[in-house]
Amino acid sequence: MVKAREASGKRARALTSGKAARKEGTGAESAVAPPAIILVNPQLGENIGFAARAMANFGLTDLRLVGPRDGWPNDKAHAAAAGAAFLVERASVYASVESAIGGLHYVLASTARPREMVKPVLSPESAAVELGRRGDKAESCGVLFGPERSGLDNDTISLADAILTAPVSADFASLSLPQAVLLFGYEWFKANSAPSLGRATAFDGPATEGIAFPDTRPATREELLGLFSHLESELDRSGFLFPPEKRPSMVRAIRNMFHRMGATEQDVRTWRGIVASLSRKHAPRGKKVS
Amino acid sequence: MVKAREASGKRARALTSGKAARKEGTGAESAVAPPAIILVNPQLGENIGFAARAMANFGLTDLRLVGPRDGWPNDKAHAAAAGAAFLVERASVYASVESAIGGLHYVLASTARPREMVKPVLSPESAAVELGRRGDKAESCGVLFGPERSGLDNDTISLADAILTAPVSADFASLSLPQAVLLFGYEWFKANSAPSLGRATAFDGPATEGIAFPDTRPATREELLGLFSHLESELDRSGFLFPPEKRPSMVRAIRNMFHRMGATEQDVRTWRGIVASLSRKHAPRGKKVS
Repeated sequence: MVKAREASGKRARALTSGKAARKEGTGAESAVAPPAIILVNPQLGENIGFAARAMANFGLTDLRLVGPRDGWPNDKAHAAAAGAAFLVERASVYASVESAIGGLHYVLASTARPREMVKPVLSPESAAVELGRRGDKAESCGVLFGPERSGLDNDTISLADAILTAPVSADFASLSLPQAVLLFGYEWFKANSAPSLGRATAFDGPATEGIAFPDTRPATREELLGLFSHLESELDRSGFLFPPEKRPSMVRAIRNMFHRMGATEQDVRTWRGIVASLSRKHAPRGKKVS
Repeated sequence: MVKAREASGKRARALTSGKAARKEGTGAESAVAPPAIILVNPQLGENIGFAARAMANFGLTDLRLVGPRDGWPNDKAHAAAAGAAFLVERASVYASVESAIGGLHYVLASTARPREMVKPVLSPESAAVELGRRGDKAESCGVLFGPERSGLDNDTISLADAILTAPVSADFASLSLPQAVLLFGYEWFKANSAPSLGRATAFDGPATEGIAFPDTRPATREELLGLFSHLESELDRSGFLFPPEKRPSMVRAIRNMFHRMGATEQDVRTWRGIVASLSRKHAPRGKKVS
């Protein structure tokens, strides 16, 4: 635990801390040390592996196991983790919850069942903010998840500072163990990492919201107006914009569609080609017209 | 599909519409029809079952399968769904993506990879808000999820209005199929579930942000697909889609433009007219061809 705390302290120093700095980030995914994910008496190796995978999806790196039912190491956990097997390999194993959380400053207990305990209840979203705030102050945090069948018992929950409960359908409130880990990790990542979507590749960074224009740019008005004039003159010629009293509203409707499309420069060229091609008497390109 | 739209319309009438009303209530979990979850060529029955379970957690009820690899019904899907087996039992199975989305008005494609497509990218959070807004207007929506190994291919993605991509660690961006469904469902539920008793209100609420469709409605996929097929066959005839090796990317680019346009039923009819008119040998309407 001391080791983990040192590492997290180092990370906090090496990177930046504080929300403002974190929002700007340029390389590091998170400036706060990620909380430990502590699986208490997990039953199925597969679920340990799936949980590890969910952790890796969201930059969580500290997996702790308390008394896994089928012993440790566990081949099924390893296989289910797929690309996140490295987290399974370096998981730490404890004999008791007390020893697993001994070095932490703040602990949440994940449970879907209402408890008769006087203890704050946090949604994953609120928990993520709270853990980020504490991480900024170099506090070490962790989240307890119970065994698949029964969840955390009241004695274990009483060791935690607060309860973590996800919003779920009242008709079907039972989250599987890896899914509960996933939702927490997702909110933690959203709240505490530089925002990016999906996978970064050698060529592309991760996606951001909105429309990207790879290798092109939005069309200028001039380009669009050129397209309008081309299309409308062909439609006049072909007789589509008929009768004359309807022409203005038809033209407006067509122009509005192109505006809504948010056409790129490439799109305008494509449409110029389409209009020219359809307007030609059908002599397919590549064939000689006799 | 008509049935689905009627059902969602009824639901909107029976319950409430509008964000404010939804936030207040106390019983009904959601006032908007939940979007369809469409699994395209899912490989493992277990994952279909886990996805169904994630759907049930968040009040999603419309599971559609396109060509499940191991056939249908599938015992493993049933077993993995546990308490959500009822969703597996009433899943609808389709031979093609086109038929699965034919009755929908707005379709998202879930993918982790940045694509060279000019198509809006939404996070699960933004997608949940967008689908809620469209659901309020009784639009039927759906989200496509690809096969486990490869994800959705570009041709399938080109059938969607926008891309759904979750914020994940760039180092380990691959979400499993049920986990991707879970994150979307979670955000959908957070944004659209009503801790509220459904108060009946008038069917039409006040105006909302976005595009209004007076006297018309968004085009169905079927109508758009009909337009695509008409336009593309004319473009084949006219030689525009040349050379053959470039045809698939040209077709995708054109389809994507129409999706971004958010075409109405009226728009599709207009385009059918434009294509027909431009393709005709120029004999203006209203003049006799001798």
